[in-house]
Parts: sequence; C-alpha cells; structure tokens
Amino acid sequence: MTSLDPQAPREDIRLRGFSRRVPVEQALAWVDAHAPRLGAEPIGAGEAAGRVPAAPVEAAADLPPVDRAAEDGYALRSSETVGAGAYNPLRFGLQEGGAPLPLASAALVAAGAALPEGADAVLPFGAAQLEGSVLEVVGAVAAGAGVERRGRELRAGTAIIGSARPLRAADLGMLAVLGVEHLDVVRRPRVRLVIAGPKRPGRLAGAPGDAAGPELRALVARDGGVVESVVPGVEGRSAISAAMVAPGADVVLVAGRAGAGPDDEAPLALAEAGRLAIHGLALRPGGSAGLGLVGSLPVVLLPGDPLACLCAYEIVCGRLLRRLGGRDPGLPHAVREAEVGRKLVSAVGFLDVCQVRLDGGLAEQIGSVQDGGLASAVRADGFVLIPPSLEGHAPGARVTVHLY
Amino acid sequence: MTSLDPQAPREDIRLRGFSRRVPVEQALAWVDAHAPRLGAEPIGAGEAAGRVPAAPVEAAADLPPVDRAAEDGYALRSSETVGAGAYNPLRFGLQEGGAPLPLASAALVAAGAALPEGADAVLPFGAAQLEGSVLEVVGAVAAGAGVERRGRELRAGTAIIGSARPLRAADLGMLAVLGVEHLDVVRRPRVRLVIAGPKRPGRLAGAPGDAAGPELRALVARDGGVVESVVPGVEGRSAISAAMVAPGADVVLVAGRAGAGPDDEAPLALAEAGRLAIHGLALRPGGSAGLGLVGSLPVVLLPGDPLACLCAYEIVCGRLLRRLGGRDPGLPHAVREAEVGRKLVSAVGFLDVCQVRLDGGLAEQIGSVQDGGLASAVRADGFVLIPPSLEGHAPGARVTVHLY
Repeated sequence: MTSLDPQAPREDIRLRGFSRRVPVEQALAWVDAHAPRLGAEPIGAGEAAGRVPAAPVEAAADLPPVDRAAEDGYALRSSETVGAGAYNPLRFGLQEGGAPLPLASAALVAAGAALPEGADAVLPFGAAQLEGSVLEVVGAVAAGAGVERRGRELRAGTAIIGSARPLRAADLGMLAVLGVEHLDVVRRPRVRLVIAGPKRPGRLAGAPGDAAGPELRALVARDGGVVESVVPGVEGRSAISAAMVAPGADVVLVAGRAGAGPDDEAPLALAEAGRLAIHGLALRPGGSAGLGLVGSLPVVLLPGDPLACLCAYEIVCGRLLRRLGGRDPGLPHAVREAEVGRKLVSAVGFLDVCQVRLDGGLAEQIGSVQDGGLASAVRADGFVLIPPSLEGHAPGARVTVHLY
Repeated sequence: MTSLDPQAPREDIRLRGFSRRVPVEQALAWVDAHAPRLGAEPIGAGEAAGRVPAAPVEAAADLPPVDRAAEDGYALRSSETVGAGAYNPLRFGLQEGGAPLPLASAALVAAGAALPEGADAVLPFGAAQLEGSVLEVVGAVAAGAGVERRGRELRAGTAIIGSARPLRAADLGMLAVLGVEHLDVVRRPRVRLVIAGPKRPGRLAGAPGDAAGPELRALVARDGGVVESVVPGVEGRSAISAAMVAPGADVVLVAGRAGAGPDDEAPLALAEAGRLAIHGLALRPGGSAGLGLVGSLPVVLLPGDPLACLCAYEIVCGRLLRRLGGRDPGLPHAVREAEVGRKLVSAVGFLDVCQVRLDGGLAEQIGSVQDGGLASAVRADGFVLIPPSLEGHAPGARVTVHLY
C-alpha cells in the first residue's frame, strides 16, 4: 500500500495542495516504463488503414516479377532500331503482345505488361508511325529503355513496410500489389473513460467537467485507441475505484476529481484500488494529473477543467496510448517554427502549455496559461511548450509551435 | 460536345501521347471553379469530431455565466484579509458553499463553483489553516484573486467556433460547455471510385491498377470524404461512361485507363458522357490525369499506376474533395524545412513530386521521379515539389518537405 512506499505521493492532499510537484520528464519516464506495446490481432488488408503492423511486411516475390513495360509503346529489339530516323524510317511487323517476338517485329504494349520474349526496349509512340499493320520506326532506342526490370522496385524478401507507424495510402497500395490480403496489426488500446462528477451540487451548467468526455473521445481516436466504455457521473471514492478495476480495458482515464478540493477523491480511489505512483505534475495547465497502476493496468488521472484535461492528455496521457498501440510515442502534432510576437508569459518551475495563434509568422499568446480557459485552445492554432527553467519567451525569440 | 470546343483537349490521344500538357496551376484553378462547398446536414455533437460546421457556432450565454471560483480554496471578502500573516492569523467562520456569505466568514469552494454572494476572492489552501469550524487565515488576498469573472472566457454572442476547419478535441469540449447538442455540418463528399481495368490480358498479378482502390479509400477518408461505392474492373468506353453517370455521388474518381495506351478509354468515356476539360498535366508522376464534368458532377481521371495515382490524387484531386467538404483546400500534410543531401533530380517543364527520406535533417531522394515505383513512396517520409522552372535542387538547398 502506498503508505509503506516512500516514493509514493502522500495519501491525501485535499485542502492542502501539492507540496511537491513531479517534473513532467519523470511522468513520461513512468509512462515509458508502464505502457508496453499491446499484442497482435489479424485483420483484412481492406480494414488496415491507420493500423500499425505487428511485424514488418516482406515482399514474397520480386516486384515486378518479370521485365515489363514501364510505359505504353512498342516493345521491340533495340538493336534493330539502330540508324532509324525521320529520313530513314525502318519498317517493323506488328505482333500481338503475348507471343514471343519474331525478328523485325514490334508489339503494342501497355505500361505494366510483360515484355514479349525477345524484346529489350519499349519505343515511345512519338518515335514511330503505324501504317496498317506496318510500324515505321523513326527513332532509335537503347536497350532497356522503357523497360522496368524484374525486381527493380523490390526484391523478394525485402521488408518493405515497417512496424513502427500506422499504415498510410501508399502502404495499402503496396499490400495490394504484394497480394497481401490479411496481416497482423497491433491491437488498438481499449480505453475506459471514467467521468468523475461532474454534476455535483454547487456546480453550474457549463462548469468544468462536462467537456472532458467529448474531448477525450476525440483524442483517443486520434491516438489510435478505441473507447471501451464511458462511465459518466461517477462520484465518491468507492465508485471511482470500482470503475477502475472492472475488467475489459487496457488503460483507464479518470477525468475530474484529481485536484486538491474537498471532493477530489480520484487519487485516493487509485491508491486504494492499486498504486498511485505520481500525483501532481510541474505542468500548467494540467498539474493535478496523476498516474498509477491497478495490477498492471495503467490508470491516468486527469483534471476535470476542460483546458487542463486537454493539456494533461496531450503532454502525458497521449504518449501512453501511442506506446500501447505501437505508435511513435512523441507528440503527434505537426510543428512549425515561429517568432514570438508579444512576450509569452510563463512560470518558472512549470512546463507551461501556452496556447498561441499564428499571425503572419508570429506566435501570439491567447489568454494566459493560468486561466485562458478552453476558449483559448479553441481559438489557438497550436501550443508552445515553455520549459520549467524559463519564465517565458521574449519578443523575437524562435519557438516551436505544435499545431492542432 | 468537345469537338466544338477549341479549349477542350483533342479527343483521342491514344498511341500519340500528349502534344500539350496543362500546367498544374491551371488544373487547380479548374478545381477551384468546379468544387463548390456542399450543403449542410444536422448532426449530434457526439458524432461531430472531424466534421466542418456549416456556420460559426456562437455562445448563447456568457461563459462563465456567473463569477465563479477559478481554483479550489476558500471564498471570502478580500477586504477582511488585510493584515493577515503568519504572526497575525485572522479567524473566519466556515460556511456552506451555496448560501450568501456572512461577514467574517469563508466558504469552501471547488474550482468551477459559483462564488457565494458577498465573496470577491478565493484564498488558496496554503494561506489558511482549518481548526475545527474556524479558518485561520495567514495571508491576505486581493479582490478578484482566484475568481473567474462572468463572461471572462467568452461573451454571449461571440462566434467561438469557426466554419473553416474540422472540429477538434477542444471544439468538442466547447460544444459541451456551451450546451450545444446538435449542429449543422457540411455534408461529406460522397465519392465514387471507378477502378478501370485493371485485369486485362497481358497484365500481371501485381501490375499497376490493383493498388489504386486501397490507396484512394485511405486518401478519401483522410480528406473527409465518404466512399459512396467502388466499381471495380470496369472495362471499355461505354462501361466507364455508365459508371460516371449513375446518380448518387458528389464526385467520381476513375483510376486507370487515363493514359495514351490502346485501351485507355477513360478520357474518351468522359468526353462522351459530359465534358473532358483537361487531360494531360505537366506533372510527374501523374501526368496522365484529367478533369471534367458530367453535368455539374466533377470527374477526375487518375492514372492506374500506383505511384502516379497517389501523386495525382495528392496534387490535384484531394483539393477537390477538401473544397467540396468545406476544408482548407491546401495540401493537408505537415511540412518541415530540410536541406538537400544528394541532388534532387527533376525535369524542366514538369511539377515533379519527389519522394524523400529525412536523414538527420537532410532530404534524400528515394528512387527517381520517373520510375521510383510505389515502393519509393512507402519508404519515403514525405515529398518535395520541384517547380517546372527547375531541373532539380542542388545539395545544400533548402526545401519544404510535405510529410506523409
């Protein structure tokens, strides 16, 4: 139990606040140690978009499997075109595509068709003129021109599609080209969303907490997870614990009741159900987030405040899902370098998530980190991470913007 | 009919090749003129992730609707804390949260709760100590501290969520906060995929064409479209025409049979069914792409070769889908600036799509633009666009990589 563990957070920080905050890097190291890549499941290639292969996909045969035409044209023997020109048209008989090519003959071929036996080049249409069944060749062609050699694109046995990223359009085309109809992919993390609260007495419609469910559904989908269930309006320590321990999920996210308020029982619920490993991060917003285990099941505590929930998910929790699903654990956002407009204000000692708008190449802060509210993230083009060692960025500084 | 239209491409380029190629900008201008944003449809907020609002979403009321606690703590009158300190603790009676606050009293409040009448600040837990029902305040607090004023985040009537981009996690949270349960979104483009060929005599298993369907399904989904139907193995002019004109789609993509080979009947089919506006682009790979209309229905002809199909979709066709769906028409890829490693080779007169791998900040070409094959796109981290005026980029040049 946590009380015997000197590394574990104090059991009850309610009405006191965090006496010590855990650096975000330490939380990420915990994530990396407790989120092993999930096992594999078979899937049809037609359903595999966005899934991560469990193992690299190898080419079973050379691609192309034989020498073939790289373009539409006339397949022929290049040596027979030597000397051909506009003033010296050479005459070839026109053959059907499939059969071996007799001497002094050419065959009409479409790109991708096997080269007829005997041919070693494809003459473009512009270098010949068809007169009935006779082809007048008015340009010479080198051996191999217009031909895609066997194995040129891919040799049999090559691991062409890796297992470190989701399959994208080109990969799906390649699976079809390789004749792969089924493959093993990493299982998608099954994510339980436990919404602690939010409708308690004294809260208002539109109060923090109502937003976490919709936010987390979208973020979980982005990171390749599948929502196993949503458990709404969970209130009280034993109910939160019960929602954590029910089987069926690969990870449990508890949104709300993570802070230092009188009814913030999520950390206590996790400590009772299993182990609260980390609670209270040097992160703004989102600092009341926590991490722990029920058996080997990772549980993430997220703030109920909509912006804090979003930030804690982005900075810590998303990495856990991406690791479970075999994806790149790093932040998934596109990045853009930008120059700071007005000063970006931050607090020493915290990793600040600063919502910014890009305005003609300048990054302009929207609201303040402390209380910009969810509207700041809605209005933002992205966010800038300001490390704990800094109290902000001066105008003109170069920063990396993570784009939404 | 096209034969009367001097602007239309020549009717039959088969066995001749393209005598004139249309600059890609001209094709994009055609797309912009023929892809109006689709109409609206109602949707539940829970299903709205990734959808584009048909109109901006306004806040119906101030957010927050009343002054409320911005953090957990004790709500009180700031004027009564003047002079409080560690050596001068001031004593306050502790009240229930909801009722108006008597003088010399404080009320325990959770973040998001309405401030009790009379209170104008929230004291953090660290500045007070609870002794039974008496609160000893050991720090002064300014008026407004720890309080989120009514309307601070958002004023009633503000258009907080725009209609120019898909809804993301923060937007979905905001819809919940605003109490929006239904909204109108732009209809998703219904896309028909007509796969012309690919199993014709003389083609091999794994020949170009087999890959286009899976590629296009993934790309259409990425760009917010929904596949209305896939019509596979369509062969011959009248069958391709028939697949174009059947009702039910907002756009028809025909993959394959777009080039200058003997059986490349897709351009002729489009000219017969409607109007072939553009055929043959100054684009590599993907130059056999075409554009046209059947009535007001846009039809895109795409090459059957897997890499050419991918490139023609990315550079021209995706923009059409994004416009129909109300999205940003520009390329959707994240970009990164990089330095050219070995020379990027290109052809003057063509917009070249050059597959590159990023290797320690250097962009290295994979295969050649002309015949790298689909494997080059599978292996690539992204692509570099080399404009028609250049024959490549020298080592050390700065280029923009569009990341897959």
